[in-house]
Amino acid sequence: MDKPLISRRLVDSDGSLAEAASGAPKVGILGTGDFARSLATRLVRSGFSVVVGSRNPKRTAGLFPSAAQVVFQAEAVESSEVIFVAVFREHYSSLCGLSGQLAGKILVDVSNPTEQEHLQLRESNAEYLAALFPTCTVVKAFNVISAWTLQAGPRDGNRQVPICGDQPEAKRVVSELAHAMGFTPVDVGSLAAAREVEARPLHLFPSWKVPVLLALGLFVFFYAYNLTRDVLQPYVREGKSKFYKLPLSVVNTSLPCVAYVLLSLVYLPGVLAAALQLWRGTKYRRFPDWLDHWLQHRKQIGLLSFFCAALHALYSVCLPVRVSYRYDLVNLALKQVLTNKSHLWVEENVWRMEIYLSLGVLALGTLSLLAVTSLPSIANSLNWREFSFVQSSLGFVALVLSTLHTLTYGWTRAFEESHYKFYLPPTFTLTLLVPCLVILAKALFLLPCVSRRLARIRRGWEKDSAVKFTLPVDHALGQKTSHL
Amino acid sequence: MDKPLISRRLVDSDGSLAEAASGAPKVGILGTGDFARSLATRLVRSGFSVVVGSRNPKRTAGLFPSAAQVVFQAEAVESSEVIFVAVFREHYSSLCGLSGQLAGKILVDVSNPTEQEHLQLRESNAEYLAALFPTCTVVKAFNVISAWTLQAGPRDGNRQVPICGDQPEAKRVVSELAHAMGFTPVDVGSLAAAREVEARPLHLFPSWKVPVLLALGLFVFFYAYNLTRDVLQPYVREGKSKFYKLPLSVVNTSLPCVAYVLLSLVYLPGVLAAALQLWRGTKYRRFPDWLDHWLQHRKQIGLLSFFCAALHALYSVCLPVRVSYRYDLVNLALKQVLTNKSHLWVEENVWRMEIYLSLGVLALGTLSLLAVTSLPSIANSLNWREFSFVQSSLGFVALVLSTLHTLTYGWTRAFEESHYKFYLPPTFTLTLLVPCLVILAKALFLLPCVSRRLARIRRGWEKDSAVKFTLPVDHALGQKTSHL
Amino acid sequence: MDKPLISRRLVDSDGSLAEAASGAPKVGILGTGDFARSLATRLVRSGFSVVVGSRNPKRTAGLFPSAAQVVFQAEAVESSEVIFVAVFREHYSSLCGLSGQLAGKILVDVSNPTEQEHLQLRESNAEYLAALFPTCTVVKAFNVISAWTLQAGPRDGNRQVPICGDQPEAKRVVSELAHAMGFTPVDVGSLAAAREVEARPLHLFPSWKVPVLLALGLFVFFYAYNLTRDVLQPYVREGKSKFYKLPLSVVNTSLPCVAYVLLSLVYLPGVLAAALQLWRGTKYRRFPDWLDHWLQHRKQIGLLSFFCAALHALYSVCLPVRVSYRYDLVNLALKQVLTNKSHLWVEENVWRMEIYLSLGVLALGTLSLLAVTSLPSIANSLNWREFSFVQSSLGFVALVLSTLHTLTYGWTRAFEESHYKFYLPPTFTLTLLVPCLVILAKALFLLPCVSRRLARIRRGWEKDSAVKFTLPVDHALGQKTSHL
Repeated sequence: MDKPLISRRLVDSDGSLAEAASGAPKVGILGTGDFARSLATRLVRSGFSVVVGSRNPKRTAGLFPSAAQVVFQAEAVESSEVIFVAVFREHYSSLCGLSGQLAGKILVDVSNPTEQEHLQLRESNAEYLAALFPTCTVVKAFNVISAWTLQAGPRDGNRQVPICGDQPEAKRVVSELAHAMGFTPVDVGSLAAAREVEARPLHLFPSWKVPVLLALGLFVFFYAYNLTRDVLQPYVREGKSKFYKLPLSVVNTSLPCVAYVLLSLVYLPGVLAAALQLWRGTKYRRFPDWLDHWLQHRKQIGLLSFFCAALHALYSVCLPVRVSYRYDLVNLALKQVLTNKSHLWVEENVWRMEIYLSLGVLALGTLSLLAVTSLPSIANSLNWREFSFVQSSLGFVALVLSTLHTLTYGWTRAFEESHYKFYLPPTFTLTLLVPCLVILAKALFLLPCVSRRLARIRRGWEKDSAVKFTLPVDHALGQKTSHL
Repeated sequence: MDKPLISRRLVDSDGSLAEAASGAPKVGILGTGDFARSLATRLVRSGFSVVVGSRNPKRTAGLFPSAAQVVFQAEAVESSEVIFVAVFREHYSSLCGLSGQLAGKILVDVSNPTEQEHLQLRESNAEYLAALFPTCTVVKAFNVISAWTLQAGPRDGNRQVPICGDQPEAKRVVSELAHAMGFTPVDVGSLAAAREVEARPLHLFPSWKVPVLLALGLFVFFYAYNLTRDVLQPYVREGKSKFYKLPLSVVNTSLPCVAYVLLSLVYLPGVLAAALQLWRGTKYRRFPDWLDHWLQHRKQIGLLSFFCAALHALYSVCLPVRVSYRYDLVNLALKQVLTNKSHLWVEENVWRMEIYLSLGVLALGTLSLLAVTSLPSIANSLNWREFSFVQSSLGFVALVLSTLHTLTYGWTRAFEESHYKFYLPPTFTLTLLVPCLVILAKALFLLPCVSRRLARIRRGWEKDSAVKFTLPVDHALGQKTSHL
Repeated sequence: MDKPLISRRLVDSDGSLAEAASGAPKVGILGTGDFARSLATRLVRSGFSVVVGSRNPKRTAGLFPSAAQVVFQAEAVESSEVIFVAVFREHYSSLCGLSGQLAGKILVDVSNPTEQEHLQLRESNAEYLAALFPTCTVVKAFNVISAWTLQAGPRDGNRQVPICGDQPEAKRVVSELAHAMGFTPVDVGSLAAAREVEARPLHLFPSWKVPVLLALGLFVFFYAYNLTRDVLQPYVREGKSKFYKLPLSVVNTSLPCVAYVLLSLVYLPGVLAAALQLWRGTKYRRFPDWLDHWLQHRKQIGLLSFFCAALHALYSVCLPVRVSYRYDLVNLALKQVLTNKSHLWVEENVWRMEIYLSLGVLALGTLSLLAVTSLPSIANSLNWREFSFVQSSLGFVALVLSTLHTLTYGWTRAFEESHYKFYLPPTFTLTLLVPCLVILAKALFLLPCVSRRLARIRRGWEKDSAVKFTLPVDHALGQKTSHL
């Protein structure tokens, strides 16, 4: 017969988050600010019994949920084993009077330094607290959660809370608390990690910094280049004022260049990495740091490329909405009437434009699939092969489509002298360099001799190992690193 | 030496979800409907041994996965400690015959009332079940999960299952069951919470109701206003029939007004809250309820604003696709020919349109970033500073861009009498009111004297506290509430 | 008085992931490939003490994080209870020399077969390992996680790791490991499930295959049909070369057909299922397999429909950007001048186009709401009623809007002989068939007599059960299956 699901014996001996039948587990909070109040709300809703320690319980009780007890600090500290310290660092020392009652308890440091404090002080808030109360166990946690999120409750069990501390059991208790409150606790090590944990809420898109600067730099360059060719040259040479092109036309000829170059920069590092592995004849040597960083920022570069491409599409379909487009058309019709021409039709131009536009739409459509699979919730539901298919194969298709889009845009212009304004080549010729290089290299890697060697290297084979002892070392990562 | 990872001793004494080496833990199900069947499927797939209690085991066995035992009710009840009650409320009493065998067991109530039942009955299904079986422990759970989701299995460990009950140990057992089935259990308190839990599947976007009504109301107002100005006035005054504008043009002049006003309404409550704190000189007093609700619905209002803006963009780029656009152009060309004018070009109009369109594209691009970071999976991966940067700073940029977009659209029209049709001012002047107020207020709050006072208030300083005893109360929330 | 949160007694006796105060739990890794290295990195960051077993510790130590010990295999195996086997299947046998030291330990098989291996070998890697080391407990896990994800760490606690094995306690230990590393472990049963688990990373969008083929097939059909009507017929009959329409125009007339038919195919299976239930007079009989599969692929079909619709919108707003559009306009103006017509305006055409475009924009807007709520992170935050409201009600609104969009596009063309080129009816008439059927059926189901009967059937009533004994069997799924 099967064993029953609940062993009654266990109920008595199990004490983790021990909940006596008589009541919920008790948690203490020192502090009465926004965070303390939101914390109390969340804890009460998660079924805990909350005791808030205040210097002036009467005055502050009204701010807390009615289910929370608000008492004097000493009393709060005495009745619970886990105590949240929700006070500013500068007031930590004011708690020293309680050190007797606090002895042996778990203190949860939830504080965040300001950017200035973080730069000036080398010791984390949590370590400072631990130094002040050597008889307590300090655990750093919840600092990444805002009072707002605490109050509203996490939307799903998906919000991570990094936890660190020197005593595993204390970390386990705080982890279970986090779990019960609907968060995902993540153990990040000892209390020495607290400084890094306290720095997290100060980050401002660190992984986006370089890609955004890169995109801005490219935009400024292409904007200046197109400005010179499309606006300054006609003004200087022919005295024509086309400055009205500044806000829209020049932006719209610069954006696709940025998008296209960024897209090729997503695939360049993979090509370089493969070339390096081929040249070195081994995968057991680290890539140089710049290449490693580049490989890790491909997602951001790709998303920026998509963003620029989408803006370019929006700008392009706005073109016929412009008044200038209407004027040009009317003037063209006028010219036709005045010159007595009966029918206007240039088959080559028509074909070029139809192909050009269709390729553009398809390239954007493909890029949008890449962008959608970059969403965390979708990326999480894909296996490696699927993710690699989308990001590597489909992404390469997008690169090829963009190249064809660019080539049909250029058509024969690169070979006509009239398009070399101020001796500057047409913009599109500049952008073709890197993408064509990437496409060529990818084609090269498909050659049987090269691809076989690369596959062998990625399965652990080494050129230089004189004695080929069969290292039982390589996990089946053939397909897993193929995206490099 | 390190302690080994598994303490063999534990294996014997640990009984939580106790799985004897001989087999999986046993779970019972009473009921043979869709939900019961999906539940059985999920439990079997999660490694449980399932016993289904039926009145007619022979007839119903075929409907269940083959790994599930289908037996008579009494037998099913006897062999398991946890029993899912998957029958309609009206049939609860028919189980009373089993109350002997059920004594001491955990009953999981998974039922959902219909909307009517929920309104009529003041007692939740779970409490009714508990009253019928006083010797059992009733836990409410899984009612928010559909048979469909159960069958397919959750896509990720992210789907929350609220659980409530009066006996902590029973809740723990059901929580572990939910975990094992791939859901995220959330303890929401005692069985008294069951009514609220049972109401959840009846909700229909409660947080969207007011924002959607607001958007609809604004749309109706602006549609009527534009209809009067753009269609009725020309008809009444000049006898011109412009009714063809109803389906597209009037919609497209109303949508941006709605989007723009909604966007300003996202930032207005924050300004009001800050003004209130400045005036009161403290943050230790609750905001009035309406302000609190408004603050909590900003996300929904912002997303509706984005939706209207996106529709406006789509409508706008559809303008040149229209036949009427083509007719207008041809007629304009005709007029030029007939009046013997040689070249059509109004520099001011050209500039106005180019700037106007470019600003519109940029505003929409910025808004789309706001919308993307509102997705739960992305919002979860941002820290507070990043979230606030996007929603507060970038959102404000979007508001400024929209204002400039509106102003270039308006240009000098507000000052020309011909645009006051029926003495009604141009629509865009109406929409500018709230946004300009918000921008002005935001600028005011940046003045050093005001911003410093606000920062102090948000760090806990109070105007009226005569004795400034250093309350060790405030968590470092300076930056966390700055989004207000 | 409340029981304290931590029972000190427990700290001593609890050994799950037992962490001695002196150090972190120890985990062993056999192998030194990419996966082994990423695994070591992740384990170290999650607070584990890692011992890597290598044949050549000196040479490989540099590749691992400095916190990981790299020692000879025998030594690594001895000091830890849980050992990750990160070597290729072909090298499993080379570990046999260690079988003495490995006895009684938990081996975690993380390997993935290649597609070829998976097809050729009927025994999973994990079962093969278990056969080689009968004294060990083998658990299959982590094979779905790429070295890349391991290195970077999961973005959220959301990434599922299927775990299987024959010994529950060993699975529990590995589950806790997965949890501590930030993943969501999912127990999928005994080691016999390993083959299925190993197949997972080989899947390439299995649920998308049929829908994508369907969409492609429809596209090819409609493209050929439109090609014949719009390009071949004018060429054959009138000698007009309209081949320039191939890249854009024909694509743009085919895409909406695909989108529209796909959308109707999302709602057809639900109608069929309801009809079947009505006819059978019971819900207690399984649907035929093809219908079941169809029902399960509705999401994918719907998303493809949205994708095609979005491409169609993009193509459509590109139309006026084309050079051919400009030529046509100028030529139209010329013709007007030459024929001395003073004003061009066809009221009917204008109305048709304005309504047609407006309906198209609204249909796409509605479809985009459906697409957004299909995102896992949003779908997870909706209850069943909300999900069903969006996907069923709002989706039906989208179908009706699309039908109206198609009808205004067609206008009177279906009744004019000139539009039957090569005797082929206009394309839009073909696409109307299925959607109109669905809309009719849905209207029929709203008739009181039909809807009441359907509701009764879905609450468990049966036509044929002679003896209506009150089966206490049905969970309140009335509203939950209404989306069928």
